[in-house]
Amino acid sequence: MSAEARVRASFAKQAFMRLLGAELTHVAGGEVDLTLPFRADLVQQHGFLHAGVSAAIADSACGYAALSLMPDDAAVLSVEFKVNLLAPAEGVRFVARGRVLRRGRTVTVCRGTVHAVAADGAETHVLELQGTMMTVQGRGLAD
Amino acid sequence: MSAEARVRASFAKQAFMRLLGAELTHVAGGEVDLTLPFRADLVQQHGFLHAGVSAAIADSACGYAALSLMPDDAAVLSVEFKVNLLAPAEGVRFVARGRVLRRGRTVTVCRGTVHAVAADGAETHVLELQGTMMTVQGRGLAD
Amino acid sequence: MSAEARVRASFAKQAFMRLLGAELTHVAGGEVDLTLPFRADLVQQHGFLHAGVSAAIADSACGYAALSLMPDDAAVLSVEFKVNLLAPAEGVRFVARGRVLRRGRTVTVCRGTVHAVAADGAETHVLELQGTMMTVQGRGLAD
Amino acid sequence: MSAEARVRASFAKQAFMRLLGAELTHVAGGEVDLTLPFRADLVQQHGFLHAGVSAAIADSACGYAALSLMPDDAAVLSVEFKVNLLAPAEGVRFVARGRVLRRGRTVTVCRGTVHAVAADGAETHVLELQGTMMTVQGRGLAD
Repeated sequence: MSAEARVRASFAKQAFMRLLGAELTHVAGGEVDLTLPFRADLVQQHGFLHAGVSAAIADSACGYAALSLMPDDAAVLSVEFKVNLLAPAEGVRFVARGRVLRRGRTVTVCRGTVHAVAADGAETHVLELQGTMMTVQGRGLAD
Repeated sequence: MSAEARVRASFAKQAFMRLLGAELTHVAGGEVDLTLPFRADLVQQHGFLHAGVSAAIADSACGYAALSLMPDDAAVLSVEFKVNLLAPAEGVRFVARGRVLRRGRTVTVCRGTVHAVAADGAETHVLELQGTMMTVQGRGLAD
Repeated sequence: MSAEARVRASFAKQAFMRLLGAELTHVAGGEVDLTLPFRADLVQQHGFLHAGVSAAIADSACGYAALSLMPDDAAVLSVEFKVNLLAPAEGVRFVARGRVLRRGRTVTVCRGTVHAVAADGAETHVLELQGTMMTVQGRGLAD
Repeated sequence: MSAEARVRASFAKQAFMRLLGAELTHVAGGEVDLTLPFRADLVQQHGFLHAGVSAAIADSACGYAALSLMPDDAAVLSVEFKVNLLAPAEGVRFVARGRVLRRGRTVTVCRGTVHAVAADGAETHVLELQGTMMTVQGRGLAD
């Protein structure tokens, strides 16, 4: 199975990404993009996309960017991530881009971004993520 | 309006917390707990609660813990947060606890935890969060 | 060799801790404290202890707290850490405390704090750290 | 006083940067580089540059990158930062580059990198930082 097929098969099992309405829109070696249309049930108290939603799509994009470079029989788990919220997340859709910064045998470091896209296509950088993903092979989390 | 009433009023506007099914179960000065029952549409590819969901409830709990100590006319925004995923998030429900570590005029530092609760009531510590909240008064994010 | 002896032997090789003047003042299973006397050449531009110094002693305390629980032939490396600076670091000495939050076979999660100690013994909490340490056995960093 | 002059004047007061031997090698709007020659008293137990040293120069580079865009009468303080250690820090010198990712009135978000430079000039990416700096005007830290 190709790396892209493995990423797509795993993503299809993420029920939470379906609940959000996120879609895989780019898969390459070390690179995955997700796109999420705005929906009124994804907001925080001021009407912006909830930070937990933008963090979730950035984390998933990074996890799959890492998985795309892992061996065929490996699975990926998030060890940790850190996000900065840069601007109110307001737009008709949101694009999360996960990129591998440093690939290791056990630990892969990723950078992720989320941009809000306005009706006219203009992008605003709303979130920056730096995180660590782990290669697991038939074992529990972070062991 | 009391701090608790302000927290409850703001939480009621977080459509995303409703979508998840999270409820406010403890509000005190500098302390907020949220409880989230397990649901099959909140999982990642291995059937555990998605890291984005546990991060989202921990971030919300921390934001409201910070808000509970802010002036009446203030709003709260997340500046940044960092999470470590400590164990697979598997349980019948999840409890996110947000606590204020250091209260400042502009910036409040919080610690958050998420525990998975098994059917027999046993708790497993699954996430640890350290983050920064900002007091905003009629202004945009992080300005 | 006992865990304490291994920690002390490794610490003695950290030339940078000697340059700072930091000393090991507590070693137990999953717990290490370092104490650093104030010195005028450790400050930033406002005369407070440089954030890099307080982060360095917190990271070292956490690394050794993790090492204290590892197998005899293991070494420890920092994968990542995050610090919040809570108050100006001003005092006659500084105490960094590293504690293991979650011990794993490969990855150990730690919490660290730094307190500034005034001439009268009063402590101010100046830094909070959350980080990830890795067990390495004859291999390179984060592999 | 120009932004560059303010950065240079403040850096000259950082006694800890002198102790390390770090020098300002690039100052522009939103961009600051520091260079640190290797010295045997800056290492951890395996002979690599101590993570606390590489974090310290990355934090300083980011703080000054933020200061370079602040008003004339402002000072800068680190609110928080997160670093990933990507590879053993081994080289004849180290270059920390701080760049402003998002400039705000109160809060500025920065990205920093540290590269190890070998005798032949080859660079290895050893540290990645994401952090938050605060503009302070005659007030205490993080208030």
